Amino acid sequence: MQSPSPVNLNAFDATFNGKFKFEYHYPDATLPRARLGILHTPHGSLDTPAFIFCGTKATVKGLTPQEMKAVGAQIILSNTYHLMLQPGSALIHKMGGLHKFMGWDGPMLTDSGGFQIFSLGHGSVSAEIKRTQQSVRPKTVLKIDETGATFRSYIDGAIHHLTPERAITVQQELGPDLILVLDECTPFNIEKSATEAAMLRSHRWGQRSLMQYANTRDHYAPQALYGILQGGVYPDLRQVSADFVNAQPFFGHAIGGSLGATKEQMYEVVDQVAERLATSRPIHLLGIGSLRDIFSSVILGIDTFDCVHPTRLARHGGALVPYAIREATGTPRREHINLWNSRFIEDPQPLDASCSCEACSHFSRSYLHHLLKAGEMLVQKLITLHNVATMNRVMSDIRSSLRDGSFKQTREFWLGNE
Amino acid sequence: MQSPSPVNLNAFDATFNGKFKFEYHYPDATLPRARLGILHTPHGSLDTPAFIFCGTKATVKGLTPQEMKAVGAQIILSNTYHLMLQPGSALIHKMGGLHKFMGWDGPMLTDSGGFQIFSLGHGSVSAEIKRTQQSVRPKTVLKIDETGATFRSYIDGAIHHLTPERAITVQQELGPDLILVLDECTPFNIEKSATEAAMLRSHRWGQRSLMQYANTRDHYAPQALYGILQGGVYPDLRQVSADFVNAQPFFGHAIGGSLGATKEQMYEVVDQVAERLATSRPIHLLGIGSLRDIFSSVILGIDTFDCVHPTRLARHGGALVPYAIREATGTPRREHINLWNSRFIEDPQPLDASCSCEACSHFSRSYLHHLLKAGEMLVQKLITLHNVATMNRVMSDIRSSLRDGSFKQTREFWLGNE
Repeated sequence: MQSPSPVNLNAFDATFNGKFKFEYHYPDATLPRARLGILHTPHGSLDTPAFIFCGTKATVKGLTPQEMKAVGAQIILSNTYHLMLQPGSALIHKMGGLHKFMGWDGPMLTDSGGFQIFSLGHGSVSAEIKRTQQSVRPKTVLKIDETGATFRSYIDGAIHHLTPERAITVQQELGPDLILVLDECTPFNIEKSATEAAMLRSHRWGQRSLMQYANTRDHYAPQALYGILQGGVYPDLRQVSADFVNAQPFFGHAIGGSLGATKEQMYEVVDQVAERLATSRPIHLLGIGSLRDIFSSVILGIDTFDCVHPTRLARHGGALVPYAIREATGTPRREHINLWNSRFIEDPQPLDASCSCEACSHFSRSYLHHLLKAGEMLVQKLITLHNVATMNRVMSDIRSSLRDGSFKQTREFWLGNE
Repeated sequence: MQSPSPVNLNAFDATFNGKFKFEYHYPDATLPRARLGILHTPHGSLDTPAFIFCGTKATVKGLTPQEMKAVGAQIILSNTYHLMLQPGSALIHKMGGLHKFMGWDGPMLTDSGGFQIFSLGHGSVSAEIKRTQQSVRPKTVLKIDETGATFRSYIDGAIHHLTPERAITVQQELGPDLILVLDECTPFNIEKSATEAAMLRSHRWGQRSLMQYANTRDHYAPQALYGILQGGVYPDLRQVSADFVNAQPFFGHAIGGSLGATKEQMYEVVDQVAERLATSRPIHLLGIGSLRDIFSSVILGIDTFDCVHPTRLARHGGALVPYAIREATGTPRREHINLWNSRFIEDPQPLDASCSCEACSHFSRSYLHHLLKAGEMLVQKLITLHNVATMNRVMSDIRSSLRDGSFKQTREFWLGNE
């Protein structure tokens, strides 16, 4: 399975005979790189710019697919790393694939497992890439070489070897619509030479992934493959990486790896990279999900985003709300209000009176605050539902605003005059 | 507030001018004490026999009121003990009462707090009353005397004094439809003399509760008061207690306290007590919720039941299913199947193909098993939803079967030929 096959990649059809398609246009002349698109998959279409919600272990934590749909979710993702360890891709394949297994019939993406292996494995990579605090997890990566990555399962200690080819096979067994190549993730503060070496290896892995995919995809339900850009914070490396993926017959491109230590550095990287990428393909920005980052990246040409942020934040009592509500409740510089705050003890208002989700239709901040203090799981579900509804509303607002020229006002509604 | 008032209890209207009403008939001549009823409250009516679901801290764990309604729940309860400590009855009153606070607009009951104070406080009382293992909780009851119970909050250590009058006031502030008198709960294995003393004190507390309620109820939304029977496993004491509540103008009666060490002893106690109680009032059996206990008690004249069992069981992966499914999956003598069991790893069937709940409509046992192992909260919600749906289906089946004379077959469908 791993040896090169006779498929001619020069003539390879990344759209899988039109089963996947990306249509787009640039509606606002004052934002020349911001675009509206429709991404067609065998499980339906999504309007872009779009947010992809994390259903890591084959479930968005606390919500059913029906609930996700009801609040406008267009697409979700699951993590190959977690699912290959538990319950295993072979089981999910046997049960009819991820869509059937988890009851989600819309478009779906899986990552390749690379990010988790390297970030959980090195302990600090994730924290560094995401610019958060140091992780305290034990290191589980045993070896990384040209063949792939060898690591221990965090569940039972079993040793796994994930190659670029195996990452494709696992994703074929899982069966989502959009799949990713295996890449090697490096933190932002390693030397340029190490970043370059990892990038070049990721390119070789990308080519092997493409070969494996091209030679086997007819045996599985239709899937489209995304290539991943690396190159860290180095413009010349990012350029090399963009040129590499442009030259390969990927269906879409995902911007991966470290985007720097600050927001400004991140926007610079995204700016340079997105400008150089083939506009004919959808561009995904991996692991980014703050409102500010989304507004800033859409105008650079990003089509899709994913991040655990809205759903994880919800489980800790944080509700995404428009700027005016944050200002009125004393936290204008955050993107959310913290329902743990004692100012909400007797607050009879809904989270966000302008939101029509179930949480905002039926429950007060006072009640949600009580549920948080009482440790009641219902609150995690309710705020998650609200945050998913709100992210979809933000994306919908962004799309409308590109259509009618009100992007600036929409940005102000959500982020204020910053 | 605690001194007797001029209300004349001999002429007292327990139905609150007809705002509460219990209609009933005995449809099956072969089961002369089994009855069908309708219990009318200001928040709607419920068909009896009915099961009351526990929403201890103002939420049924994991489900919204809308979800409860969708699977047929008619009535829920909350626990006075928990809510008086957190967030406090004054706050809930200020927020418009329990119905508004938690978004449940149907009939609702609260207990008086007595059971939790005594069971959590003594550590072993709950375990003994419920015939389960010894509790390891610290003792929090500081003093019990004629005035009431003094105990420490399990949340912040603050000292609370709950009198019969205060238990009424707290429940008036909470605002459910049906409320209970404060009683003193004793374990089954204490001496008869101690059981008798506690019973007589509970009667005095019952009278004080009634006085407090009668003198103040016009200041609150309409509520109906239930008296509680004590007397442990002693037939002569239970008789005294039944005669006591019959003689007081309560709206309904709840059978409390220890029901013995075995199922047989419990059915004997319920048999004797229910026979002696005024048939004109609804009879509630406190804290009982196994399918076998319900089928056995309905034919003795019990109208309503409550128990954490169906919802707690669900959170531990136990799904209530008809007998045939338990038999087919190797656990006929249990009332549930355990989704943790590895036999379900590759089982593509729903929990119960004869159930129409969301969990059974969309998900396989294989998926639920995966979610349990992965520690995903969605599974607690899904199995809770299923168990609530199933308890409502059981109660509905019981009601239909009393109507059409098929009680025995219905019992067999759920419990087999035991």
